[in-house]
Amino acid sequence: MNTFGRIFRVHVFGESHGPIVGINIDGCPSGIRLTVDDFKEDIERRKPGAKGTTPRKEDDLPIIQNGVFNDHTTGAPITILFTNSNTRSGDYEKQRATPRPGHADFVASKKFLGFEDFRGGGHFSGRLTVCIVAAGVVAKKVLQHLSKENKIEVNAKILSIAGESDPEKGLQKAIEAKDTVGGIVECSVNGLPIGLGEPFFDSAESLLSHAVFAIPAVKGIEFGSGFAAASMFGSQHNDALLNTEGQTRTNHSGGIVGGITNGNELVFRIAIKPTSSTPKEQQTLNLETGNVESFSVKGRHDLCIALRVPVVLESVTAMVLADLMRVAR
Amino acid sequence: MNTFGRIFRVHVFGESHGPIVGINIDGCPSGIRLTVDDFKEDIERRKPGAKGTTPRKEDDLPIIQNGVFNDHTTGAPITILFTNSNTRSGDYEKQRATPRPGHADFVASKKFLGFEDFRGGGHFSGRLTVCIVAAGVVAKKVLQHLSKENKIEVNAKILSIAGESDPEKGLQKAIEAKDTVGGIVECSVNGLPIGLGEPFFDSAESLLSHAVFAIPAVKGIEFGSGFAAASMFGSQHNDALLNTEGQTRTNHSGGIVGGITNGNELVFRIAIKPTSSTPKEQQTLNLETGNVESFSVKGRHDLCIALRVPVVLESVTAMVLADLMRVAR
Amino acid sequence: MNTFGRIFRVHVFGESHGPIVGINIDGCPSGIRLTVDDFKEDIERRKPGAKGTTPRKEDDLPIIQNGVFNDHTTGAPITILFTNSNTRSGDYEKQRATPRPGHADFVASKKFLGFEDFRGGGHFSGRLTVCIVAAGVVAKKVLQHLSKENKIEVNAKILSIAGESDPEKGLQKAIEAKDTVGGIVECSVNGLPIGLGEPFFDSAESLLSHAVFAIPAVKGIEFGSGFAAASMFGSQHNDALLNTEGQTRTNHSGGIVGGITNGNELVFRIAIKPTSSTPKEQQTLNLETGNVESFSVKGRHDLCIALRVPVVLESVTAMVLADLMRVAR
Amino acid sequence: MNTFGRIFRVHVFGESHGPIVGINIDGCPSGIRLTVDDFKEDIERRKPGAKGTTPRKEDDLPIIQNGVFNDHTTGAPITILFTNSNTRSGDYEKQRATPRPGHADFVASKKFLGFEDFRGGGHFSGRLTVCIVAAGVVAKKVLQHLSKENKIEVNAKILSIAGESDPEKGLQKAIEAKDTVGGIVECSVNGLPIGLGEPFFDSAESLLSHAVFAIPAVKGIEFGSGFAAASMFGSQHNDALLNTEGQTRTNHSGGIVGGITNGNELVFRIAIKPTSSTPKEQQTLNLETGNVESFSVKGRHDLCIALRVPVVLESVTAMVLADLMRVAR
Repeated sequence: MNTFGRIFRVHVFGESHGPIVGINIDGCPSGIRLTVDDFKEDIERRKPGAKGTTPRKEDDLPIIQNGVFNDHTTGAPITILFTNSNTRSGDYEKQRATPRPGHADFVASKKFLGFEDFRGGGHFSGRLTVCIVAAGVVAKKVLQHLSKENKIEVNAKILSIAGESDPEKGLQKAIEAKDTVGGIVECSVNGLPIGLGEPFFDSAESLLSHAVFAIPAVKGIEFGSGFAAASMFGSQHNDALLNTEGQTRTNHSGGIVGGITNGNELVFRIAIKPTSSTPKEQQTLNLETGNVESFSVKGRHDLCIALRVPVVLESVTAMVLADLMRVAR
Repeated sequence: MNTFGRIFRVHVFGESHGPIVGINIDGCPSGIRLTVDDFKEDIERRKPGAKGTTPRKEDDLPIIQNGVFNDHTTGAPITILFTNSNTRSGDYEKQRATPRPGHADFVASKKFLGFEDFRGGGHFSGRLTVCIVAAGVVAKKVLQHLSKENKIEVNAKILSIAGESDPEKGLQKAIEAKDTVGGIVECSVNGLPIGLGEPFFDSAESLLSHAVFAIPAVKGIEFGSGFAAASMFGSQHNDALLNTEGQTRTNHSGGIVGGITNGNELVFRIAIKPTSSTPKEQQTLNLETGNVESFSVKGRHDLCIALRVPVVLESVTAMVLADLMRVAR
Repeated sequence: MNTFGRIFRVHVFGESHGPIVGINIDGCPSGIRLTVDDFKEDIERRKPGAKGTTPRKEDDLPIIQNGVFNDHTTGAPITILFTNSNTRSGDYEKQRATPRPGHADFVASKKFLGFEDFRGGGHFSGRLTVCIVAAGVVAKKVLQHLSKENKIEVNAKILSIAGESDPEKGLQKAIEAKDTVGGIVECSVNGLPIGLGEPFFDSAESLLSHAVFAIPAVKGIEFGSGFAAASMFGSQHNDALLNTEGQTRTNHSGGIVGGITNGNELVFRIAIKPTSSTPKEQQTLNLETGNVESFSVKGRHDLCIALRVPVVLESVTAMVLADLMRVAR
Repeated sequence: MNTFGRIFRVHVFGESHGPIVGINIDGCPSGIRLTVDDFKEDIERRKPGAKGTTPRKEDDLPIIQNGVFNDHTTGAPITILFTNSNTRSGDYEKQRATPRPGHADFVASKKFLGFEDFRGGGHFSGRLTVCIVAAGVVAKKVLQHLSKENKIEVNAKILSIAGESDPEKGLQKAIEAKDTVGGIVECSVNGLPIGLGEPFFDSAESLLSHAVFAIPAVKGIEFGSGFAAASMFGSQHNDALLNTEGQTRTNHSGGIVGGITNGNELVFRIAIKPTSSTPKEQQTLNLETGNVESFSVKGRHDLCIALRVPVVLESVTAMVLADLMRVAR
């Protein structure tokens, strides 16, 4: 449910408008240096404030409550909290009458029988991704700690926004249309050992996609050649093995064969839908009147949430890989 | 690893050229009628033999060893075995020298230190999907058993082969090119209750994609609008809610919002790469000579494995949904 | 590791001398009324301060941070924190040289390579049981929420202290000897449905004992007749079935047969060792001198920790049962 | 449910009177030599046939179906089957009317709504312990494989039968009384590294007791001083640390402190109840007549099942320890 991982396990908790959001990380090896400063760069990358992102700003200072002592991990669970200082006390009760399209409002109300915290998306809010970024910072350190030989580097970047390879152009489309847009983000990992991933249900792709679809707004994932593979010939697609280190001539496999990393660059892409909270007028059922009515979403929102996704994508990727590396061979 | 599910749990085991492959299903409710006949239709759908598929034929009679008594599930683990009667004793030792591109040969050898059963792909063989189909038959019955109101129907179909919406045309491409081809398969589920899926890490998409990437040759998955969403405006993409049953005007969400089923049709698509064992000459490293050499794959293989995937896709889908429905609310 | 449960899952975190200890509860149904007042009675029962218990007092006010809204559970993870206000800044560095017998000092240092938070026992401290009591309060409410018919009552009590059935007498032994003592605690549960527990590895006894041995200082557990059964005849031990509700003439089984609750009172006992921090002089290795030396434990400690165990035992018991009741049948 | 372990995972399946019982072992490292001969000694130790045990004899030849190739583990799941050749086709339908005291007959019927395989105890039969013994053989090999330095030895022995330290005397009591008797079995493990076991919920005691209570007829477990600790003083109970290898002067802790192995001998004892199927006349409810009536159990049974438990106890112990050793540090 709100837990991911077998040994390196991350638990996420909190709501958009509660006092805190946070994570608990179990199974982190002891002796890894970790301070508040380590989080700054990645948390900054996720922050709103840039063009096309929500003006809601949080300080987002990680409060390390447990599991770290004398600036090193202790082996006990690591608890990191973030306070929700910048919440607005909107008239949420009123907004409940019109479940927002694209949001979890309606399904949450059905699943939790009306008891869900509906303020600002509650537990479904993108706010919780700050916790994931924090977990990612730790996971990246664990990767380095467990990697005997190589430097493992996890990098994600925007491939396109609104179909434009230049993000600025894509964002301009949204601004001009007074609407929101989506995008495509690519993640690559270098320096991985051969052999991560387990046969059948815990293939590297299975675990990565499991974690990736926890990121709000993800609509698809593809590894290596991805959907394009469906139109290729086998002789084109196959990656010729070149040497005993596993290097291949091409990398249509995206660095995973048979569910197991093959020592080449791990590459995959994800599709992010346009932000559901568009400035445009929309229609939805009004639960009070029983009619389908026009309405507008209020509040501060991103025109393109994809812009903030790369660091979150790196984070879940690092979590998965760190967990896979905790099994003794 | 070779297990999937929290309550309704499937374990898969076996190798392509060992005596058997099989599954063990834990957490199946008691009292569900189950006989060998129930498996025939779906196992038949997976069978090779049609145009473009491997001529290797297995009887594929499920041997129900445990967990069924007087033609009903008992609540104890269900063990179903399939014998591997139609294996050919090829010169596998010799073939080891040239790890086949696109196959797990090389990574398996690295991960398992050369101890893997390399005959016919061993535990990585597509042969194991017959077990998944058997698990799917049981899962579909469990879905029906647990669904109080609706008839839940899981259907998968070929959307395209080699980029052609007419599968015959796509397959013809392969035959003409003396090569292999991939395809796209779509799965849809009707009759699901609102509320399946858990917040954050166990979103319905997370669980479905986890299971789907256990199917060999899958390169990507997308839900609802999928990758196309990345080029849409928010006002286009949002599905307007029409009534309190959750019906929406469009279904770009693919039946899942916030990770939770919303009562509309669940729709997702997967990309299948071209069969790695192409009749075409290829190159790979020869581990004995140390040179990259041309070689040809021997044996009986599918020109397009995608043709046999729909029933396997239905099966993993049913497994995930059956498990989600076993939590008491 | 620091997580227990399949659906109703409890995560515990924190250290004795860090800023907080806490729990995160995943998988709690929505709509259960829950306020700070609900915790008072059970937390009071665990508190030190009575004769024979440590004079260290904490306010132990639960801070409910997430998962509760308008005084009801929301279905999202419930986070409850407790501040560690009453810590003493002893000279812990100095004490490290002499690992305390009966404590985790030495093994923690080995397992975590010297990086563990060693202050006051760190993550191994009995302080964390306040979190378990909080989880137990929620679990007891979940039991009631999921129980359709019966009122489920979980009760634990002291059976003996230092071998005396009158706890006061047992405690007097400790005071007179200027030493610490152990005791035996019994837990019983009434109103359980028939059928909780799963065949083989998740028998009711397996799950209960798993959770029980998380309580510090537990040395043994026995169900029903327990160790006495080893000296009984089968004809004595067997509980004759009396009616279709499952009532038996005797209850040597302790309410569990074949790993499954049988509708009779669930009864089990646990043994608690004497508090390791005895006022008496002891010997241990001095890591600085390399000699085995006499030393005395400093600080505020319980003469008999068993006195504070009953409410903790009820709590882990309720956690296990609540989880078992979350599986749909 | 029927699965145990995080990485080294054992699944057990089958019924007493079905065609087979078996296990599936996931997460076993590759490259461990394993042949049918390796199982003989331990399977022989579990076999009935000795004085006081059931005359039902099975060949109990393990059929290794998967996961082993060229006499070595491959890293794929290991499937081992045992055929149930020696079943008697008794009039089980008739016996259903009188649920046997001490057996799962009644609770199984309630839990599985009458669909359970009731022949010979079905999935609840002690017959399944032959699978556990097979898993134990593999686990012992894994222990050795993963132990870098020491030889790890797991040994269990009878401490008493019917209260007599001489098993023959205890068994004689049963024969004279024409009844069944219980006993106490002790398990010890030497050569373990310091540091196995995880803080809080996955303490070494938690995991061991979880697995131990999967063995039918176990009523209690105690580690080191066990229940006797409840009557000891702290100064008596504490084990003085003697050197940096962790050796202690006494071993009241039983080799586990704070839930973590401390490098001393791991010692624990379990209580086994008298065999429920006593030759003595007993009473139970007759479901057909609705009266509590006298009846006698028919069939071949052990006078003292405890005699066959030691090798089973070693097996679950080895399973737990092998799993704990698969986490990379």
